[in-house]
Amino acid sequence: MDNPEEWRQQAWAHLTKLRQECPLVQCITNFVSMDLMANVLLSAGASPAMVHSIDEIPEFTPKVHALCINVGTLTPDWLPAMKVAAETANKEGKPWVLDPVAAGASSFRLMACLELLGMKPSVIRGNGSEILALFKGSVDPNSKGVDSRHESTDVVEAAKSLAQLSGCVVAVSGAVDVVTDGQQAVSIRNGVAMLQKITATGCSVTALIAAFVAIDPLHVVEATASALSLFGVASEIGMDMAKGPASLRMHLIDSLYGLDQVCIEPMMHDHS
Amino acid sequence: MDNPEEWRQQAWAHLTKLRQECPLVQCITNFVSMDLMANVLLSAGASPAMVHSIDEIPEFTPKVHALCINVGTLTPDWLPAMKVAAETANKEGKPWVLDPVAAGASSFRLMACLELLGMKPSVIRGNGSEILALFKGSVDPNSKGVDSRHESTDVVEAAKSLAQLSGCVVAVSGAVDVVTDGQQAVSIRNGVAMLQKITATGCSVTALIAAFVAIDPLHVVEATASALSLFGVASEIGMDMAKGPASLRMHLIDSLYGLDQVCIEPMMHDHS
Amino acid sequence: MDNPEEWRQQAWAHLTKLRQECPLVQCITNFVSMDLMANVLLSAGASPAMVHSIDEIPEFTPKVHALCINVGTLTPDWLPAMKVAAETANKEGKPWVLDPVAAGASSFRLMACLELLGMKPSVIRGNGSEILALFKGSVDPNSKGVDSRHESTDVVEAAKSLAQLSGCVVAVSGAVDVVTDGQQAVSIRNGVAMLQKITATGCSVTALIAAFVAIDPLHVVEATASALSLFGVASEIGMDMAKGPASLRMHLIDSLYGLDQVCIEPMMHDHS
Repeated sequence: MDNPEEWRQQAWAHLTKLRQECPLVQCITNFVSMDLMANVLLSAGASPAMVHSIDEIPEFTPKVHALCINVGTLTPDWLPAMKVAAETANKEGKPWVLDPVAAGASSFRLMACLELLGMKPSVIRGNGSEILALFKGSVDPNSKGVDSRHESTDVVEAAKSLAQLSGCVVAVSGAVDVVTDGQQAVSIRNGVAMLQKITATGCSVTALIAAFVAIDPLHVVEATASALSLFGVASEIGMDMAKGPASLRMHLIDSLYGLDQVCIEPMMHDHS
Repeated sequence: MDNPEEWRQQAWAHLTKLRQECPLVQCITNFVSMDLMANVLLSAGASPAMVHSIDEIPEFTPKVHALCINVGTLTPDWLPAMKVAAETANKEGKPWVLDPVAAGASSFRLMACLELLGMKPSVIRGNGSEILALFKGSVDPNSKGVDSRHESTDVVEAAKSLAQLSGCVVAVSGAVDVVTDGQQAVSIRNGVAMLQKITATGCSVTALIAAFVAIDPLHVVEATASALSLFGVASEIGMDMAKGPASLRMHLIDSLYGLDQVCIEPMMHDHS
Repeated sequence: MDNPEEWRQQAWAHLTKLRQECPLVQCITNFVSMDLMANVLLSAGASPAMVHSIDEIPEFTPKVHALCINVGTLTPDWLPAMKVAAETANKEGKPWVLDPVAAGASSFRLMACLELLGMKPSVIRGNGSEILALFKGSVDPNSKGVDSRHESTDVVEAAKSLAQLSGCVVAVSGAVDVVTDGQQAVSIRNGVAMLQKITATGCSVTALIAAFVAIDPLHVVEATASALSLFGVASEIGMDMAKGPASLRMHLIDSLYGLDQVCIEPMMHDHS
């Protein structure tokens, strides 16, 4: 699909299906992001389930339509539940998405991310620094936690290689978002810079990817691109009304809830 | 009380007393809801205390005026603190309220809820699916987590029976909220559908019920009805200004803070 | 510095430096405050890192520019990580700030706070009741959790003594904020009463102090005063647009993000 209009129509079709089917998305995520992530999923039309107890995952995860695993405030006691949930999703043929928050910030975190990566998520979504850390398999001595020091276009090659090596679709967030399965690469040029001034927007878009892949599991690249571009468009609409990061956060969620076909006219993709 | 005007006056009297006495409400709740719950309590005039360590509950819980226990992101390590807090509240004659979030989603969760129910909370507040799961004592094979598939009016009989069996007041949230002690049933027709698009509004109204019961512990049905209807009215006022779920959340809290006697004119109850 | 104009210029210089240097602030904080704290830090220009696992602190904390430790929803399993982080910060010469939330609410909490206090934070920031509890080293039988029953001006003497005894700068929040190193005391007369109706504003200002001390570690009193007064001014600007606590929260963050030199004209200090 090389035509921006086709991507727009596809994104609209995805959103329409999401709103109709209301997929149940289990989130095992960090404490900072739980509120925003649940609200973003609800506003898009999905149903969030913040369930992380290993005591109910074997029984609960088979009922969900997708799973989102995020290592943001990781401690060792959360890892077993993440692994059992990923295993269960794999066994049941449910898509799951990994957010390797600050993967390069410490060995503990990097090892956890690599271990989860080895369980073959459908999608990995991170910023440039996180994707590079996973690709290199090494801790970044200058890591600033969740903030990226690498622009996404710099890391497209690393993302492609990581996708090939891991067999996962890789999405890199940045001024331009890139989604790749190792062969093709789609660039998404929506979003606003101020999103970086709101905590957990990256985490939330990962959960949104899970929701979109849930309703189109055979087209993971396309569903991921739809999620990223619709979230970006919602942020652009929100930005028109925002006076700062907190009002942007509010207008972003409101806009995501209210997106219609006219709204998504400014959606921009490249394909290579 | 069959007269809507009497219910209104009662709700206003409750809110006035709440604002004067500023009851301290201890919340042992899920991670997703903590922020909204604390802000809802503050806006209504109560004082929240998010304290869940078993190491301080025996010393701290006797000082609070009510306790709210919510199993939303339950793991086994949180249960002992919940039980000690409930026991302490019972021993001290303090009201406590149970929110059996997603009670039917897994055996682990259902067992935990039934165990807490056995400790005789003053009020149980859930949606239709949660109340049915507790009543039947069985896991719902189609549970969608926190979202209800049962309208509250369908479950009034189950709620009445559960109230009789458990000796607790049961509140069922839905398009119409119902509060019953097993004999009488009060229906509350306030609130807006978009509340379901905001995470933790149900959790927060449960905490609000705890605050209202704290200031009128001898009239649990009435205090519960006041909390539900005032929260519903605040959401209606908020809805007039809202453009989506995130602005509704903001306007709801602002409205709850600003409620005056004129605001509560649209309050609607039935009694049977 | 006795001249209000000098304090204003200093605060502006601090904020300018903060925005340029974007210090990385590690927060080990309670669940209720994580979202607001991260967003306040981002809006001011700092970079938050909510990292609390003892497995990565020895590797991660040396990379941060300041550390904020907050005992809000403390359980015993979080204490070792707090201590290792404080130790690491001390060893590396990084400033760290302690928020002794509800220090007087239980023996468990008080002991934890006194233990952390013994590790010599750069700054302790609390309300009047919390500072008094630390000073007296005793549980307050009437503690209402996070809400203060003591106005800050009542506790200036206790704060001064605590500063002398502990060797830390002590900041007391209240209608008037006071910052003291045991010798001098600065009073800050910014802020609005409605901040008390928003959960975690106190926690967030403590994190902001950490960010300001990070960029001026040799002038801890001055950096702390700048953080308190700029947050206060942002709340005053926000209050002009607010209709209640939730819109104040939004406008406060937006205002903090947008602060310019004109905005800080109403900044007020006394010095003694």
